[in-house]
Amino acid sequence: MTATHNFDKALALTPGTQRGHFAGTTSPDYWNMVGPFGGTTAAIVLQSVLLHPELLGAPIAITVNYASAIERGAFEVQATPVRTNRSTQHWTIHITQADANGEQQVNTTATVVTAARRETWRASDIPVPQVPPPAEVARMGIGPSGVAWLNHYDMRPISGHVPTKWDGSGDHSETRIWLRDAEPRALDFASLASMSDMFYPRVWLRRAKHVPAGTVSITTYFHAGKAELAEVGTGYLLGRATGQRFHNGFFDQAAQLWSEAGELLATSNQIVYFKE
Amino acid sequence: MTATHNFDKALALTPGTQRGHFAGTTSPDYWNMVGPFGGTTAAIVLQSVLLHPELLGAPIAITVNYASAIERGAFEVQATPVRTNRSTQHWTIHITQADANGEQQVNTTATVVTAARRETWRASDIPVPQVPPPAEVARMGIGPSGVAWLNHYDMRPISGHVPTKWDGSGDHSETRIWLRDAEPRALDFASLASMSDMFYPRVWLRRAKHVPAGTVSITTYFHAGKAELAEVGTGYLLGRATGQRFHNGFFDQAAQLWSEAGELLATSNQIVYFKE
Repeated sequence: MTATHNFDKALALTPGTQRGHFAGTTSPDYWNMVGPFGGTTAAIVLQSVLLHPELLGAPIAITVNYASAIERGAFEVQATPVRTNRSTQHWTIHITQADANGEQQVNTTATVVTAARRETWRASDIPVPQVPPPAEVARMGIGPSGVAWLNHYDMRPISGHVPTKWDGSGDHSETRIWLRDAEPRALDFASLASMSDMFYPRVWLRRAKHVPAGTVSITTYFHAGKAELAEVGTGYLLGRATGQRFHNGFFDQAAQLWSEAGELLATSNQIVYFKE
Repeated sequence: MTATHNFDKALALTPGTQRGHFAGTTSPDYWNMVGPFGGTTAAIVLQSVLLHPELLGAPIAITVNYASAIERGAFEVQATPVRTNRSTQHWTIHITQADANGEQQVNTTATVVTAARRETWRASDIPVPQVPPPAEVARMGIGPSGVAWLNHYDMRPISGHVPTKWDGSGDHSETRIWLRDAEPRALDFASLASMSDMFYPRVWLRRAKHVPAGTVSITTYFHAGKAELAEVGTGYLLGRATGQRFHNGFFDQAAQLWSEAGELLATSNQIVYFKE
């Protein structure tokens, strides 16, 4: 008997009668503090495209805008292939939930680009961080934070841990971490999209101050095809995230995700709201 | 007599009867090889939001997807405020042109986030490159390339010039450059969005090989408000761009734009199609 992985349960979408329309339900497993973990929301956006009968190729770019909180319960997703070219396809996606009057209100907007890739020259201009292997790095304890989604990832921070003292002593914003699903699951585009949002708000690390913060918009670029993801399988990814500019209520952070073999699989940027 | 700046001519949008709907015409001044300079297209997207009567705050994020070529002539823009919160607003935008049957076809999709910013703690974790001042750097000649938009910018590359020999000798992908409008024009969000797309395809520099390449999607984060942009005025911006991962037909490049005073005004990422 093979039980369905929690992540696949969270991604489960039922096609509606209208093409590209899907129904889903928020996952208690991947719940964050006041809504679903944003990575899951990005994965659901991507999944609606991957399930669409008109899909061309594989994802190369996704932008997800968290327009408002998603409530526990049912949601709807609409994925529309706005333009299909010979080798690229452009998608718009939105997630909605019914308000008190039963009217669907948009809580998430997104765009995705998919493409039929061809083999070309390859290179990476971002050096792979030199770090000890996952087996030599302690797994992060979750403790009594009450944040459900953290339980579903095996996270092994090498540097840039969540501060244990909120004493304003921070002086950098870089985290390096090994990560993978806690219950093994072979890497695919949906889980890679989700893991791109895995890094806690850089402002906490930079300031060692626990201010309110939340992602407003995330953009992830995929630098691997299905075959390269299959090679990773259930292995660890090496993640690195750094803050860039903190200014008047918003900051951005840049992230990279490598395979254990040192292939840069995804680069991701997000802009994050923060207070004070 | 004050003549209208060419960039403002390129941005000119006429409101239609439907709210958020505008008509415009492509600019010959900012023409690229086979379509408008993508920076101008991003600026037009942003301008449609900035002209919208329901606008809340100032831009913090823009993603523009270049879904298909824009032809010379008339186009239409539709900007829709999908969700308005207390301090943020989420927009979807598309640009269309009439096809041979007179039907509007989408060539550009975009999302924008605007926000009412409040003063907070500030920092930048990307060091400002140490470079000679603009007056000590030679302005780039345009030569007979026939690319119109290059004439409208004063570009002073410090390092990472466009290769003069396409001999495959490239070994890095970083350009540092001073830039501003050739005809002086005070910096605003539209011109900052445009300048974020100013950097030529990194694959040319990295390989010293002139392969076909074109931006597929660009995301820019704004780290300045109207007051900070006003301080820059007609001064130069210091731009830096680097390639990240080149893989099977696509690569991404990251860019930063500082004021001459060393303030990081915008960070930008794009994914670019390339051949071979």
